[in-house]
Amino acid sequence: MSEQLDNSWFTEVFSSCGSAFSMKVKAKLHEEQSPYQKLEIYDTETYGNLMVIDGCVMLTDRDNFLYHEMMSHPALFTHPDPKRVVIIGGGDCGTLREVLKHPGVEKVTQIDIDKLVTDLSEQYFPALCDSNNDPRAELLFEDGVKWVDNCPEESIDLIIVDSTDPVGPAEGLFKVDFFKRCFRILKQGGIMVQQSESPLYHTDSIIRDLHTDMQEAGFTTTATLPFPQPVYPSGWWSCTMAGKGTDVKSFRTDASEGKAFDTEYYTADIHRGALSLPPFMKKVLG
Amino acid sequence: MSEQLDNSWFTEVFSSCGSAFSMKVKAKLHEEQSPYQKLEIYDTETYGNLMVIDGCVMLTDRDNFLYHEMMSHPALFTHPDPKRVVIIGGGDCGTLREVLKHPGVEKVTQIDIDKLVTDLSEQYFPALCDSNNDPRAELLFEDGVKWVDNCPEESIDLIIVDSTDPVGPAEGLFKVDFFKRCFRILKQGGIMVQQSESPLYHTDSIIRDLHTDMQEAGFTTTATLPFPQPVYPSGWWSCTMAGKGTDVKSFRTDASEGKAFDTEYYTADIHRGALSLPPFMKKVLG
Repeated sequence: MSEQLDNSWFTEVFSSCGSAFSMKVKAKLHEEQSPYQKLEIYDTETYGNLMVIDGCVMLTDRDNFLYHEMMSHPALFTHPDPKRVVIIGGGDCGTLREVLKHPGVEKVTQIDIDKLVTDLSEQYFPALCDSNNDPRAELLFEDGVKWVDNCPEESIDLIIVDSTDPVGPAEGLFKVDFFKRCFRILKQGGIMVQQSESPLYHTDSIIRDLHTDMQEAGFTTTATLPFPQPVYPSGWWSCTMAGKGTDVKSFRTDASEGKAFDTEYYTADIHRGALSLPPFMKKVLG
Repeated sequence: MSEQLDNSWFTEVFSSCGSAFSMKVKAKLHEEQSPYQKLEIYDTETYGNLMVIDGCVMLTDRDNFLYHEMMSHPALFTHPDPKRVVIIGGGDCGTLREVLKHPGVEKVTQIDIDKLVTDLSEQYFPALCDSNNDPRAELLFEDGVKWVDNCPEESIDLIIVDSTDPVGPAEGLFKVDFFKRCFRILKQGGIMVQQSESPLYHTDSIIRDLHTDMQEAGFTTTATLPFPQPVYPSGWWSCTMAGKGTDVKSFRTDASEGKAFDTEYYTADIHRGALSLPPFMKKVLG
């Protein structure tokens, strides 16, 4: 009934969303099963290299800047003085690189359970790993939830949950129990930020539940920030921030406007714009 | 190499972009060849009804609000006092409906060459045609360029070019010659707005050329506003405004903030946010 895709395309079907996204592929560069998941790397025609985990698009050269900038800079410019940062997941190291652009950050611990993600990122996405040797960076390969449980209470300024979707291994990272564990290790004024799926598809399910669960875990304010992300379902994505006594609906605009590093998407104006939800989302999230 | 889509999916391949978007289909409701193009209507699993023209996704029930609101309200709140509005294309009547929400608008002429688009919209997208009987609305089915040429000079406040992509029938609507014709019929202070493709795919081609061509046609200011649009290539779309003596980079914020009608996506904050381009676009568009 419509054009057909031959096997020169990589397709991800978003079954529950009734849609699919495909990229034209030049070659498969790598396929490897880790103890946790199957990783594939493709060379695409227009998106550069593509990383796929268990059939799901993780990132491409071309558009990962949107996600990585929005997972890091809004939260870092919201916290009054972030020094100690933790990334749960994030094995491709793109979020780590963005966090380390902030000179005030003293230490970032990235905990991804799967070392293969980082190994393949170093090989196929070297630009994302630019800052892996920064002396402030600590890369651990273990269970992020256990790490959080072993972390002293009120010792962290910012937790970034840069995980896969809330099915399979990452499902627990979207639950109130996990938010309570994060809340415990955050200092007063601390923030957590979580990737939170599609505004079009998930506002009245995953995103609404995130707000409720984060508040139930003790966080005093929450905010969802939408941003474009062409390779994820609907091409429209979001992150959700939660503050432990910090208002995540405002941010250090002077610091953001005066930032001394380059970004491709994030600006203070875009941060401000993302904080103002479209009415159809406001209606659901209050 | 990845999941395959069976024939219960409608797929649009964006060949030049190296990507494709698919929706799961329940049934084909209609297929008809007009003198100009082939129209198809599908019932989809999660996007409601879908209109396809010559194999290209035009709109769905679920996400057309994004496009229609952004093609109309930013321009209407930028013009100091829009009374006389023209829509070139727009046969689905969704843009017309949004324009007519502005009480100051006295007359809107919609000129789509293909009456079948409107007929099928009335049948399958009745909500979009809510305002077709508004006494301020005039629906014409003829060549929009010829209509513009027969229109008295300096008689129009706002021209909205709600066209298909710049290939085939609509190609001429993206050229400097057409912008000059539009410029002629706009009053001083008038504005034209054009759908302008994907920020990710087309910033350094179609969008950049639009700015150059609109300025060459005599427009004094231009601005591109990005917005999400899941069913279009990359899921990220844009409109580009051009002002004849009006600064399209500012707008009537009080009127926008105090608007007496509902929207699902457009707000003054979102308008403000869309006016502030991401750095990767600013670099190209200056």
